[in-house]
Amino acid sequence: MAVTHLQCRACKAQYELDARYVCERCFGPLEAAFDHSRLGGDVGELRRRIQGGPQNMWRYADFLPTVEGPPGPSGRLASRVGLPAGCTPLIRADRLAQRLGLREVWVKNDAANPTHSFKDRVVSVAAARARELGFGVLACASTGNLANAVAAHGAALGLETYVLIPADLEEQKILATGVYGARVVAVQGGYDEVNRLCTEISAEREWAFVNINLRPYYAEGSKTLAFEIAEQLGWELPDRCVVPIASGSLYTKLAKGFEEWRQLGLLEGELPRMNGAQAQGCAPVANAFAAGQEVCRPVKPDTIAKSLAIGTPADGPYALDLARASGGAVDSVTEEEIREGIALLAQTTGIFTETAGGVTTAVLAKLAARGDIDPSERVVLLITGEGLKTLDAVRGTFETTVIEPSFEAFEAFEARVHAPAAARAR
Amino acid sequence: MAVTHLQCRACKAQYELDARYVCERCFGPLEAAFDHSRLGGDVGELRRRIQGGPQNMWRYADFLPTVEGPPGPSGRLASRVGLPAGCTPLIRADRLAQRLGLREVWVKNDAANPTHSFKDRVVSVAAARARELGFGVLACASTGNLANAVAAHGAALGLETYVLIPADLEEQKILATGVYGARVVAVQGGYDEVNRLCTEISAEREWAFVNINLRPYYAEGSKTLAFEIAEQLGWELPDRCVVPIASGSLYTKLAKGFEEWRQLGLLEGELPRMNGAQAQGCAPVANAFAAGQEVCRPVKPDTIAKSLAIGTPADGPYALDLARASGGAVDSVTEEEIREGIALLAQTTGIFTETAGGVTTAVLAKLAARGDIDPSERVVLLITGEGLKTLDAVRGTFETTVIEPSFEAFEAFEARVHAPAAARAR
Repeated sequence: MAVTHLQCRACKAQYELDARYVCERCFGPLEAAFDHSRLGGDVGELRRRIQGGPQNMWRYADFLPTVEGPPGPSGRLASRVGLPAGCTPLIRADRLAQRLGLREVWVKNDAANPTHSFKDRVVSVAAARARELGFGVLACASTGNLANAVAAHGAALGLETYVLIPADLEEQKILATGVYGARVVAVQGGYDEVNRLCTEISAEREWAFVNINLRPYYAEGSKTLAFEIAEQLGWELPDRCVVPIASGSLYTKLAKGFEEWRQLGLLEGELPRMNGAQAQGCAPVANAFAAGQEVCRPVKPDTIAKSLAIGTPADGPYALDLARASGGAVDSVTEEEIREGIALLAQTTGIFTETAGGVTTAVLAKLAARGDIDPSERVVLLITGEGLKTLDAVRGTFETTVIEPSFEAFEAFEARVHAPAAARAR
Repeated sequence: MAVTHLQCRACKAQYELDARYVCERCFGPLEAAFDHSRLGGDVGELRRRIQGGPQNMWRYADFLPTVEGPPGPSGRLASRVGLPAGCTPLIRADRLAQRLGLREVWVKNDAANPTHSFKDRVVSVAAARARELGFGVLACASTGNLANAVAAHGAALGLETYVLIPADLEEQKILATGVYGARVVAVQGGYDEVNRLCTEISAEREWAFVNINLRPYYAEGSKTLAFEIAEQLGWELPDRCVVPIASGSLYTKLAKGFEEWRQLGLLEGELPRMNGAQAQGCAPVANAFAAGQEVCRPVKPDTIAKSLAIGTPADGPYALDLARASGGAVDSVTEEEIREGIALLAQTTGIFTETAGGVTTAVLAKLAARGDIDPSERVVLLITGEGLKTLDAVRGTFETTVIEPSFEAFEAFEARVHAPAAARAR
């Protein structure tokens, strides 16, 4: 396998591939390091190996920090046991592009994952590594999507599961966690309090907290989104990606995925411009970007985009670097713009996204209106979660008419709405 | 293309491929007829053509009643414009099999479709044919899942959309329809009243009602589930399928799909035993099967499995024939068994299904307990919809504990639940 060790992002100290996430020397964050020369083969062979893999994210096992390797000829190892994530659709959105005055927009719809968010990717990697390391309990601190994913993957693998969430979480996300038999613990406080408590528990229990002590493995799962986008575009890079920012991990790992493949020769050309998207009610990275700062000032989240409501983004400084280095930006949008973004995406593509996707769609609309996007660009819009999980954002945005079960009642309804189609009646 | 004409299932009268569904001579239902010899090529060539197609149900375009043909080399025609359905996961469910004392169970998870039910398949075909025939308005009578699918596909294709639903439908399904900009009309009455009204409207308006005047095209979409299952099993037939029955269309078309491929030599061996699954609160087909009758007596539905709540199943007699001819059966389960089925599937596979999947899982459990399934059998369980759409069925089935954000509070919680993991604390 290509993964070799864990390494501190700050001081470069090296560690073995066990369950740790903080550098003992400088307290910097640890990251998985790879030696891709171990893979062998030229570009053609690497591509053929990927294309011959399973129709899920384990086709990219060579580039992930698990040591088992890709599934064998039976495909059983990691792909068919457990809950396969990834290989979600990349859809050309001509009607959306037209509405925004753009030429080529693609929507990467990660709501098609097993628990309907991109978190299935990161949890797949963390859970696989947790099993390799012999853990019997899977756990997490979550704003909702991660809770669903950890509970589901834990059930699929037969692991005991603990999920800690903020007490005010949407009921949809709580029900879609408890159904898997997970122990659901609602903590009085916001995500930042939940996360602090989980960090404390992780020091006292031999549990695999996917986004704490397993974080170096977990985070690499996001790279599979970059790999898929490039493979689905015919082994080409997009010109621009619009990506939600919560902790900043997805945003930065997406770029890392593109870069790894570029260095290997699997992709050619410039890295895409990376546009980050936040809600104004929780915009520490967008605020720092606008102010020209290198670190983020913590904020107290207040937004309907709960899956992005992290007031102290761990990867904030790395996200700011990336936005500037790639020629992108980090923008924020209002609650009203989020709702409009959900409706715009649904009405032009047939894709119903949760509030986080309303944030990315609204930022894309803002970039287009501002003239930041060249007409020749190929843009990829990331949709990371499902509308059924945040139905409150849609309630009251349209009208339902109740009628009696008769044709006369239907004709009266048509007359009221002045339906253009009525003119086409026989 | 292989599709040649529409044909009456009763008197065999032939009609052109336009928007009609009833035989003018005997009032029997019309069905699409195919001449597969038009496809040319041997088995190897047919398989290679499928494998070279897009990663969605349009890889089976040769076997569907649209005349455009499969997408060209650009893949743009039917697969990338619009909302691609199909190619959902077939997952080996060893933990579920073990729990039921079976050897080999596979779960076909059609909740992975764009609007999270198998209805995306039938709507894809009906919408494609509606465009070919020049319709500007897409419409349907729906118990919910179909409403979501018609609204989403209409939005993706830029068609005006009318959706008629029973007035007491779950709010989740109404919100996930209106968001796409569809005109949502709630009819006072059950599905059977809604269907009657839509039949009347379809005679008065030049609209494409996917499940009325487009029904012969729509229904064929279900065959893609059979094609995918066989392809995902390595071009082999399963020994048994457990399938939900509402109108009976999915159940019978699944068998038709297997049979078409068997006749073409794409598959070998016996057709699978076909087990139908209904809720006791709406079990016209299961009741007729148990009584040894050839037709179904209409019932007034009363069940939480609303997507199966059709009291007058149009394909009832064909479903009864199939159950008997294939060596299968049609069983029904209680509301409590449906809830237990949802929990059993979630806790052993990580898949969260709507009530209809609770029905099929509960019927599988019943067949296993009854000893109807031979240990050597390869069984496929159909999951046709998503748990997020019927959350009411899960509410109150588990406990959530609220704690203060402190390690002491967490330890007290652990002590209360006597978590076995606590013994593993350091």
